[in-house]
Amino acid sequence: MIIMKSDATKEQIAEVVKEIKKCGLRADVSEGKYRTVIGLVGDEGKISFARIGTLPGVKEAMMIETPYKLVSREYSKFFEREGESLIVKAGNIEIGGDAPIFIAGPCAVESKEQLLKIAEGIKKAGAHALRGGIFKPRSSVHSFQGLGSGSQEEAAEALSWLREAGEKFELATVTEVRGEAQVDIAAEYADIIQIGARNMYNQDLLTKVARKNKPILFKRHFGAGIEEFLSFAEYIVAEGNKDIILCERGILPIGKGKSYTRYTIDLAAIPVIQRETYLPVIADPSHSSGRRDLVFNMSCASIAAGASGLMIEVHYNPSEALVDAQQAITSDELKGIVDACQKIHKLVAPRSNEKS
Amino acid sequence: MIIMKSDATKEQIAEVVKEIKKCGLRADVSEGKYRTVIGLVGDEGKISFARIGTLPGVKEAMMIETPYKLVSREYSKFFEREGESLIVKAGNIEIGGDAPIFIAGPCAVESKEQLLKIAEGIKKAGAHALRGGIFKPRSSVHSFQGLGSGSQEEAAEALSWLREAGEKFELATVTEVRGEAQVDIAAEYADIIQIGARNMYNQDLLTKVARKNKPILFKRHFGAGIEEFLSFAEYIVAEGNKDIILCERGILPIGKGKSYTRYTIDLAAIPVIQRETYLPVIADPSHSSGRRDLVFNMSCASIAAGASGLMIEVHYNPSEALVDAQQAITSDELKGIVDACQKIHKLVAPRSNEKS
Amino acid sequence: MIIMKSDATKEQIAEVVKEIKKCGLRADVSEGKYRTVIGLVGDEGKISFARIGTLPGVKEAMMIETPYKLVSREYSKFFEREGESLIVKAGNIEIGGDAPIFIAGPCAVESKEQLLKIAEGIKKAGAHALRGGIFKPRSSVHSFQGLGSGSQEEAAEALSWLREAGEKFELATVTEVRGEAQVDIAAEYADIIQIGARNMYNQDLLTKVARKNKPILFKRHFGAGIEEFLSFAEYIVAEGNKDIILCERGILPIGKGKSYTRYTIDLAAIPVIQRETYLPVIADPSHSSGRRDLVFNMSCASIAAGASGLMIEVHYNPSEALVDAQQAITSDELKGIVDACQKIHKLVAPRSNEKS
Amino acid sequence: MIIMKSDATKEQIAEVVKEIKKCGLRADVSEGKYRTVIGLVGDEGKISFARIGTLPGVKEAMMIETPYKLVSREYSKFFEREGESLIVKAGNIEIGGDAPIFIAGPCAVESKEQLLKIAEGIKKAGAHALRGGIFKPRSSVHSFQGLGSGSQEEAAEALSWLREAGEKFELATVTEVRGEAQVDIAAEYADIIQIGARNMYNQDLLTKVARKNKPILFKRHFGAGIEEFLSFAEYIVAEGNKDIILCERGILPIGKGKSYTRYTIDLAAIPVIQRETYLPVIADPSHSSGRRDLVFNMSCASIAAGASGLMIEVHYNPSEALVDAQQAITSDELKGIVDACQKIHKLVAPRSNEKS
Repeated sequence: MIIMKSDATKEQIAEVVKEIKKCGLRADVSEGKYRTVIGLVGDEGKISFARIGTLPGVKEAMMIETPYKLVSREYSKFFEREGESLIVKAGNIEIGGDAPIFIAGPCAVESKEQLLKIAEGIKKAGAHALRGGIFKPRSSVHSFQGLGSGSQEEAAEALSWLREAGEKFELATVTEVRGEAQVDIAAEYADIIQIGARNMYNQDLLTKVARKNKPILFKRHFGAGIEEFLSFAEYIVAEGNKDIILCERGILPIGKGKSYTRYTIDLAAIPVIQRETYLPVIADPSHSSGRRDLVFNMSCASIAAGASGLMIEVHYNPSEALVDAQQAITSDELKGIVDACQKIHKLVAPRSNEKS
Repeated sequence: MIIMKSDATKEQIAEVVKEIKKCGLRADVSEGKYRTVIGLVGDEGKISFARIGTLPGVKEAMMIETPYKLVSREYSKFFEREGESLIVKAGNIEIGGDAPIFIAGPCAVESKEQLLKIAEGIKKAGAHALRGGIFKPRSSVHSFQGLGSGSQEEAAEALSWLREAGEKFELATVTEVRGEAQVDIAAEYADIIQIGARNMYNQDLLTKVARKNKPILFKRHFGAGIEEFLSFAEYIVAEGNKDIILCERGILPIGKGKSYTRYTIDLAAIPVIQRETYLPVIADPSHSSGRRDLVFNMSCASIAAGASGLMIEVHYNPSEALVDAQQAITSDELKGIVDACQKIHKLVAPRSNEKS
Repeated sequence: MIIMKSDATKEQIAEVVKEIKKCGLRADVSEGKYRTVIGLVGDEGKISFARIGTLPGVKEAMMIETPYKLVSREYSKFFEREGESLIVKAGNIEIGGDAPIFIAGPCAVESKEQLLKIAEGIKKAGAHALRGGIFKPRSSVHSFQGLGSGSQEEAAEALSWLREAGEKFELATVTEVRGEAQVDIAAEYADIIQIGARNMYNQDLLTKVARKNKPILFKRHFGAGIEEFLSFAEYIVAEGNKDIILCERGILPIGKGKSYTRYTIDLAAIPVIQRETYLPVIADPSHSSGRRDLVFNMSCASIAAGASGLMIEVHYNPSEALVDAQQAITSDELKGIVDACQKIHKLVAPRSNEKS
Repeated sequence: MIIMKSDATKEQIAEVVKEIKKCGLRADVSEGKYRTVIGLVGDEGKISFARIGTLPGVKEAMMIETPYKLVSREYSKFFEREGESLIVKAGNIEIGGDAPIFIAGPCAVESKEQLLKIAEGIKKAGAHALRGGIFKPRSSVHSFQGLGSGSQEEAAEALSWLREAGEKFELATVTEVRGEAQVDIAAEYADIIQIGARNMYNQDLLTKVARKNKPILFKRHFGAGIEEFLSFAEYIVAEGNKDIILCERGILPIGKGKSYTRYTIDLAAIPVIQRETYLPVIADPSHSSGRRDLVFNMSCASIAAGASGLMIEVHYNPSEALVDAQQAITSDELKGIVDACQKIHKLVAPRSNEKS
């Protein structure tokens, strides 16, 4: 990390970047309110921090010890509002700010009517963003793979419904990309691109999505430690895109006998991640539990743990949903969650901030 | 499970019990408000439910399908207040009632002065019970094993301080037994006997403690599924003791790289267990996280998940504590937790009950 | 699954396939020695097995109960050599036959000289195939990503060395693809395409690679159960490609304290998978252990567990390797492994077959 | 650790021990062939190694860095045969020597006839020791708890059958103790006392068993890391008993979907433990897999991984066994395993030793 003096010139910054490239690394230039900070992408061992420290305009040049550097809180201490967490702006919403954000909608988009009806319901319930899967990652090749898994035209049509529903009800839109071929079209229609848990390790997909310069909802893999999760978020920031919303959605359950939930939601990961990085963190109580009757309690618990928002599956008729019927709730139930969570957020937010 | 008619006589109940014993099983007789229910301990295959169903005074005789029977919600539907959760009374407190209960104190008792000072602090902060370890389970034979690990006299002295502190500040007292030889003396002095996570599978210890007819704080092993946890609680109820407070204290972390917490607290286990059993459930945010800076958020999250109380490590000077110094908080910090948690409990409690 | 009569005509088969497509499913036609079997890709609920059973040339139409159908041993019972395991042919080698196969080479290709030198060494040691990574999946964006991560020309050059080394020393060649953009070029140069553990869930990549009609070395994800592993192999077979070599390479370690190995190699998975599917299974003792000093014992243990081959990292100077230096062995050490493993394979092979 | 000079006198050793006790620690005196080594039990921080180093007869005084000290290979380098592994003698057998040892028998002792019949069968098959459970740890209070769970007389009778069968067929005998109350009687009858996986963390039981000065078969808990496993073995050595046979018997499976085995046998743990400690390690392919059809392959794999022996469940009529019927094999099958394993042991043994 190279911290420039507050009065460093554009030429001086360019000179430092040139020097970095000469050593075979890439540069991440973060122009903050008070100064510019330059992160490094590549093997830090190839560079002489001592030498870079003597270049004109450079205040300090130093290594970051964590395996994730560009997403580390240490790095953020020197740009923008000095160590404060990042607020990610997407469509008309802000994630990581004073109020919790609710992203809701069906697991899979099934029809235009379904989507509009659900969008209307969640808007009334107080949600801020609409989710809807067009390209579904599925454990079985024999299951429904989402409306977008056929031709590009079919994908575009389903995506256009998402955009239309978002515009009509003033909701930001989120959709998942499952493979590299879907990145362009998804970025054309949605406000936020989701990278699902199963693709957390897919560095080629991460790089491709990052270059779209759109906000990314990035889910933790169910077998990933926090260090790995942040190290893969680093692949996105290495492309110059810091608009990342991290999402805890449950890790593999352990122990013998029947599993009562699909995954084990790791809520302590939320305050931990907030201490390690400046990126906002949300939680997914629907996929993690896989049980409608647990969504209220796990939503409240996620916000109490410090989450900046929630991603919840909603359907007007949960039992009819083509995918994940057993965990969707109604928009009435969503309203109860929004109300309780806003109150809990106020109780914990001052304390969470103070600690971080 | 055998459900007696509401007007069944003592003789009729005795006759059923006799019949059960004849088949080589034991009987758990639960006299509820409206009727008596008889649970079975042993292999249900050895008994003819059809035959038992014809005995005088018997309303219905049927199998319970879960591997845990006597602790199942199904069983509780027929006794006491018809399916409501059990309220465990211990000393002057009630666990599982309308308000959350806070059990606080040092990981290990170090001296009479230490214990009295901490007891005073937690009482002021709003705690209801005092914890203090005399017999410490430790990963290393080379570490401090607790003041009670020497002679019986030393154990009795340390336990008497616990009793004295409890009486002086009107706090119920909790202490852990690590081995069978400690059960008698611990039961003599403490209001609640704790069985720690590492002893969850120790059926001989469970049986011995159960027979003391004192409330038991029973912690889930870090490698145990919920089915196993409840199946071992069944060993306690099989001795006729239903006064069990279940405690979620974290399971083994998974994933590569550095662990940021000692364990992964499984908060979804709380509402799950509440749907499976009538026993109250609390959480331990101190041991599960192993980090002082996470205790506030994880306490709030546990209550939001539906916990009936919390067990928190408190020390007047955390950095001085002989055991687990890195996770103890001060009583001032405890007060902030008690305040926030009481408000959160009110927000979630009506919904949690409604669901169960 | 639809089993055709042994004298079914091409027209009758085509008629059944037409019928399947009409119901919205795809057909996998397996022409075996004795008869043709047709597997289904899609939701079996949409089809009437009773009706299909009455079509001319159809012997039997029935559901397969496992979530993986086209890779199940049940399916293989009706084609080829009636339930025998599949022998995958790749280049000049056969995997799954009478002798164990040894795939060896550097983790990452570093230069033409390095690759040729290693190829020569492993050939002398008795290896059958040469591995070499051109596109490396890495946990850190700051680490070396493989020679192929720059331009297509650089990738083609490195791949041409692999082909040259393979031809010179009569070794089949294996290389990993990390993203969809690398599939075409890799398929042009290598005999076997590897899909690494981190991409096991990447169904779009699986589909794209499957369509190349080349043998695929498919590694189990470190967080995947066996059911999931086989369900994702099903994505490959659903494209009509059965030439899959499954590879066990270790799952996430559990338990507190220091990890002594990188992963926990799950050797019981080998005989289990052999009972569930007709595909051959090999093991990777290098990546799973991450320790040079364990490779000998874990190689022998893998073969004793029933593996059809091994994938082992070899370098002429392990400490110099750019990637995974701590687990590479020399070709001399490889020779010792090949010798011991061939003897062990003879001791266990008859018994393994007899059981499956 | 304090290494005495080879000519140190008894008085000098006693003086060092006295000094250690003065600091509040205990001493483990190991009289080796060439010299005496004194290990420390307790907090090493309380002692001045510099000062101890100056006492008469002391060659060197130094800390051991691992959390387990008295069981570490480092400690063993200085006593007995200088770093060689320990050979544990029990009854007429030696574990850890030149040949693998086979411990076989029923999971639970059911009758005298059953035990004698099985003992005869395993003896013919080549086994060296007879196992038989009298006190069974069970997940359900409703299951058969073993013949010894009633009165002391019943326990003594069942144990006497074990001794009789052992004497009659010249087999060493092994039985498990589940609780502290069973230690005296089990030690009276059996040659080797087993501490099962669920009791690995039960330090009070470990201490009590250790003091019997009998060989102990110590199983790894299914949720324990290797560091923890060895740290609890240290509780036994801290009582002066080094006759410990470590046993790998499977850890918790991870991953979604159906479990095909009861546990995941961690075979890499075997060579790892052999590098960390001087104690012999065996494996249990029966409990770890829970499947009769996997026992042959997993036995061979365990020996190939370097195990010094196996513990296998045998029954003359597996389907009739009261406990764990699905994993018991016949003595004919055992014979096939013994034969294959003896050959595999010869192939790997020289290499395993050379490495450690």
